[in-house]
Amino acid sequence: MNILVTGGAGFIGSHLCDSLTAAGHNVTVVDNLVLGKVENISHLLDKDNFKFIEADILDTPVMEGVFREGKFDMVYHLAANSDIQKGGRDPLVDYTLTFNTTFAVLQLMKEHEVKKLFFASTSAIYGETSDCLTENYGPLQPVSNYGAGKLASEAFISAFSSTYGIQTWITRFPNVVGERFTHGVIFDFIKKLRANPAELEVLGNGEQCKPYVYVKDLIDGINFVIANSHDRFNVYNLGSDSRTKVKEIAAMVIEEMGLDAAIRYTGGDRGWVGDVPEFRYDLSKVNALGWSAPHDSNASVRLAIQKGLGK
Amino acid sequence: MNILVTGGAGFIGSHLCDSLTAAGHNVTVVDNLVLGKVENISHLLDKDNFKFIEADILDTPVMEGVFREGKFDMVYHLAANSDIQKGGRDPLVDYTLTFNTTFAVLQLMKEHEVKKLFFASTSAIYGETSDCLTENYGPLQPVSNYGAGKLASEAFISAFSSTYGIQTWITRFPNVVGERFTHGVIFDFIKKLRANPAELEVLGNGEQCKPYVYVKDLIDGINFVIANSHDRFNVYNLGSDSRTKVKEIAAMVIEEMGLDAAIRYTGGDRGWVGDVPEFRYDLSKVNALGWSAPHDSNASVRLAIQKGLGK
Repeated sequence: MNILVTGGAGFIGSHLCDSLTAAGHNVTVVDNLVLGKVENISHLLDKDNFKFIEADILDTPVMEGVFREGKFDMVYHLAANSDIQKGGRDPLVDYTLTFNTTFAVLQLMKEHEVKKLFFASTSAIYGETSDCLTENYGPLQPVSNYGAGKLASEAFISAFSSTYGIQTWITRFPNVVGERFTHGVIFDFIKKLRANPAELEVLGNGEQCKPYVYVKDLIDGINFVIANSHDRFNVYNLGSDSRTKVKEIAAMVIEEMGLDAAIRYTGGDRGWVGDVPEFRYDLSKVNALGWSAPHDSNASVRLAIQKGLGK
Repeated sequence: MNILVTGGAGFIGSHLCDSLTAAGHNVTVVDNLVLGKVENISHLLDKDNFKFIEADILDTPVMEGVFREGKFDMVYHLAANSDIQKGGRDPLVDYTLTFNTTFAVLQLMKEHEVKKLFFASTSAIYGETSDCLTENYGPLQPVSNYGAGKLASEAFISAFSSTYGIQTWITRFPNVVGERFTHGVIFDFIKKLRANPAELEVLGNGEQCKPYVYVKDLIDGINFVIANSHDRFNVYNLGSDSRTKVKEIAAMVIEEMGLDAAIRYTGGDRGWVGDVPEFRYDLSKVNALGWSAPHDSNASVRLAIQKGLGK
């Protein structure tokens, strides 16, 4: 297939490109390199079935040309803001990078009659609840502009899919960890401990408890869902039904770095405004389809720490 | 209170203005008169506690001035596209008029620290399902760009409410009928029968079955919900748990017009792409709060026909 990956130079996007090029697809990446990095895809640049275009998805004239020339069978839309805290400080960040990019991609797909779409969604659309989250959970009340931008994206994807006949796969990610990450708790802890090996500041009380998934497992799950679900509109939670506390992550990072750092908690039940301190995934839908993550949440975190330390 | 009503010259907005001015509030209406009409509010223009500003909500410099001068305690945000079929032909209509207007209002409220919001939402956010719709229903998979624009609005409203402390009331309307309507099945039938009293063309097979609510009942419900629910984020379905078939509406219009017209069905289970042919509301949440609509669905339709005919 001729495939467009938006945000393909990013953390998750670049792993997806590894997988899609290895499977023999013709892959075009569009990335504006604001969050993505050429280093993430430099090993793919000399492949015949891989093409990188540095462009902004909101640059309509350029994107018209990309779609005209690419003759895409399918779009994997991953381009988005990935810094939830930044989006909380300025709502325009997620309005523009998380939502408007999606609407632009949908308009391009409609005009150029591309009929298959994968969309990278998130647990953040569910908002803050201690209930176990199934794909049919309601109400959907996101507490971050990032979650809002993703839910707004899902809303228009649903309407476009129905109105213009676009077969769609949406997978909702929990926290994703592993090689090439650029933000998040593990990344932050390693950075902080390199700056000060004696003490680690942890935002919140350390009791925040969420599922983590290793990025290569996530890519495996995405491929599995697309290959094995055949409705017009397919939605799956992906990840792990096990969870890891932030205090456990702190301990693992300190251990893997061979340090004896003291942990200082800033207090409060969450890291920042818009953070969801706790959630729980029901993965019975994707399990029933035949997939479960090779690593549980703790093993994913451990692996990501080791990869982050270059082990 | 100092209140801003966006879309206040529209069908539902103008009835809301009647109610809010009668209750003694200082009401400012912003409407660009693309869908709204001055006639709808002309009887309010000489009141001391009513002010009309012809402006587009997306005109940021003008709206900055409106907010600076208005010192609003609360915003009732009703401005939106109301023509679902038009939105299906061009997705930019609902992107711009239904969603971007909401985002603009939220940004203005954040900047000017307005802490109370009412939002007019819709059954269209739920998509197409024969299930009975509670406020916690999931999945939310709108089939029209209008429904998508409203769900996208709810998503950012949820995040702004949580992040910036805006107390919010969202009510989700079914089909609303009554004086001043500008579109919809009753409006269309009267118009068609005035042009040709011998035959009425009905889109679909006439079996489409939905709840209808009389506009003044709806306004009563909105006021009741705002007065009696006190959470930070309050969501209620409003309307009737009874329903009316399109073929029954056709018969009632013909009867009220004193005609003997033949009905010709265009066939198919729905009126147009993006139409939801059937839905059912669970109103137990608003009933438990102490409100139910004075007129059921059939009585609302009958009343709206009579008002539409100037009876």
